Amino acid sequence: MSADQSLFIPVILGTPRQGRMSEHVARFVVEEVVKRDGVETELIDIRELNFPTSDAGETIKDPKFSATVERADALVIVAPEYNHGYPGLLKHALDTNLKEYIHKAVGICGVSAGSFGGTRVIQNLLPVMRELGLVTIFWDGNFSSVQNIFDSDGKLLDEAYIRRIDKFLKELIWMAKVLRYGRLNISQD
Amino acid sequence: MSADQSLFIPVILGTPRQGRMSEHVARFVVEEVVKRDGVETELIDIRELNFPTSDAGETIKDPKFSATVERADALVIVAPEYNHGYPGLLKHALDTNLKEYIHKAVGICGVSAGSFGGTRVIQNLLPVMRELGLVTIFWDGNFSSVQNIFDSDGKLLDEAYIRRIDKFLKELIWMAKVLRYGRLNISQD
Amino acid sequence: MSADQSLFIPVILGTPRQGRMSEHVARFVVEEVVKRDGVETELIDIRELNFPTSDAGETIKDPKFSATVERADALVIVAPEYNHGYPGLLKHALDTNLKEYIHKAVGICGVSAGSFGGTRVIQNLLPVMRELGLVTIFWDGNFSSVQNIFDSDGKLLDEAYIRRIDKFLKELIWMAKVLRYGRLNISQD
Amino acid sequence: MSADQSLFIPVILGTPRQGRMSEHVARFVVEEVVKRDGVETELIDIRELNFPTSDAGETIKDPKFSATVERADALVIVAPEYNHGYPGLLKHALDTNLKEYIHKAVGICGVSAGSFGGTRVIQNLLPVMRELGLVTIFWDGNFSSVQNIFDSDGKLLDEAYIRRIDKFLKELIWMAKVLRYGRLNISQD
Repeated sequence: MSADQSLFIPVILGTPRQGRMSEHVARFVVEEVVKRDGVETELIDIRELNFPTSDAGETIKDPKFSATVERADALVIVAPEYNHGYPGLLKHALDTNLKEYIHKAVGICGVSAGSFGGTRVIQNLLPVMRELGLVTIFWDGNFSSVQNIFDSDGKLLDEAYIRRIDKFLKELIWMAKVLRYGRLNISQD
Repeated sequence: MSADQSLFIPVILGTPRQGRMSEHVARFVVEEVVKRDGVETELIDIRELNFPTSDAGETIKDPKFSATVERADALVIVAPEYNHGYPGLLKHALDTNLKEYIHKAVGICGVSAGSFGGTRVIQNLLPVMRELGLVTIFWDGNFSSVQNIFDSDGKLLDEAYIRRIDKFLKELIWMAKVLRYGRLNISQD
Repeated sequence: MSADQSLFIPVILGTPRQGRMSEHVARFVVEEVVKRDGVETELIDIRELNFPTSDAGETIKDPKFSATVERADALVIVAPEYNHGYPGLLKHALDTNLKEYIHKAVGICGVSAGSFGGTRVIQNLLPVMRELGLVTIFWDGNFSSVQNIFDSDGKLLDEAYIRRIDKFLKELIWMAKVLRYGRLNISQD
Repeated sequence: MSADQSLFIPVILGTPRQGRMSEHVARFVVEEVVKRDGVETELIDIRELNFPTSDAGETIKDPKFSATVERADALVIVAPEYNHGYPGLLKHALDTNLKEYIHKAVGICGVSAGSFGGTRVIQNLLPVMRELGLVTIFWDGNFSSVQNIFDSDGKLLDEAYIRRIDKFLKELIWMAKVLRYGRLNISQD
């Protein structure tokens, strides 16, 4: 991997819930990432990762998911707020990796049906992100009343989110580049 | 339900991980609860709750689990610390109920292989407990270096935990009684 | 103190900042509490508590503040969100008491100039409230864009907050009564 | 400022409490930083910053403190755990700056008289650090039962802390270098 290589920033759709509005958010973020030169992305759908439920942690690694995270320079996590915390199956999936995350960037998009932009799921994820070795940027995506931001086909109804996600992605791409430089060029002693 | 009736305080074993030491903690807590007059308990093993992974929330309720929580006056949650957060499948299970929890008490036992007694999973659960309507007591069970507290058969090796869990259960039982009195006797207007 | 006695629920104005909008919130909450039969209140202004800054904790107790908290059945804390945390001087004041808080209720009003209702200061206060022995109710006051809710004289511009604070106070008063019953009537063994 | 310049990593002693053991921790960290080539440091004592208590935020900036933070590449924050949260006067001081922190590294040393290494004050600081624009590294200093780690003159009694702080400082210095490279060389578009 060279410093000139494209960045790879996959987007994790963090819930399997039927009728999930977060899917519209994740697809919107993927579209916005794709517009940026020099950045590749793909959608990782938690619903399609079939981790066993009779165990937990690195012993149930999915080789394809782990390889994707390993290759990533940064992640976007799209997380709906469930009871002020994160969806269980998002955490079940995240816990299957560890060294794959270290010294990479992450940006979080909180999603809620109510007024507060998923701020509480974002706060609840912060200590987990840090322990995984990820650096959470200080811009978030906040999708309040998400049912009013997209129509039922996932078409964006509120153009302000394009400007907001632009600021979010600028910061995420910056941090991804900076940390990649560090991983490639700066040793620990 | 009358105020004289036994309290019911089930213990949730909050991880399906193979080789889980938390099972020893949960069985120990059940044994200690059983010793108390007027308190019934049972072990709820997250591994045996087979919630679908293609959906989330109240739509995938398990009638038996929900009835147990509905009947409970308080819960003990035994939660190992995974990356400073809670096990995903514990949250996946908790999110299937809502009104069943309201105005009941909960005590958390944090479990870790390291030195800090699972304090970080406890802190991470606090906002979730509150949003579920549960009151988290201010005594915790902290099982640091859990591999040294129990032998491989689950026999307790450190008697100090009996005194510690006694303080924890005294507070939990007190809060369970107080909130039951409130649910039965005090109206909201 | 008898069970029939009035409840005492002081409101803590949690910032000394010049130009604070939280003062309007705190005065509004006091007015709403006063309307309830059988509930007394008073405003505690953090700015007027002159704790030394050369020490911290219970050694710098203010007898009047401690007596007020000791007498209280519940607290309302009005806390603006400063960098996603609580105002330092609010914590400096809260840390001067300990046993005065135990087994009492607290409701938090988060205040922010932005859109998210001070949710992040509320989440940040939760572990502190618990360790102090307070029970944080699961209704919050969320004052987003507070500059639009009150005029410069502190007159409420948005009547919806009367209904919202009514729900908040109903829950707080309920929890205050329940815990007072417990403190007076239920022993720990 | 060039990439070859020394790093500047001041250590903030985060409590004014009389009899504070955190002072021993802060002086120990300063000594360890000084041993590293190419890293300068100094001790910032919260007790000596005389911020007014009649206001809060950037309006009460102390020019010297702000200049020190502005010049810093990283910070070490030594924070005792008070009621599972941070000392109020630490937050009162931190809130006086904002842009001075952006895209810099921070490492946190939690201090407690009890067993859990100040983990709870560290978790409580995480959202604040992020909002300030700081990147909290994923190694911490954890000083449990601090009264046993130092004698009354501040002499280190447990040599294991030298190895632990070495790992902590390696990570902090790495992150400080990486982010400095980014601030100097990588633009946001």
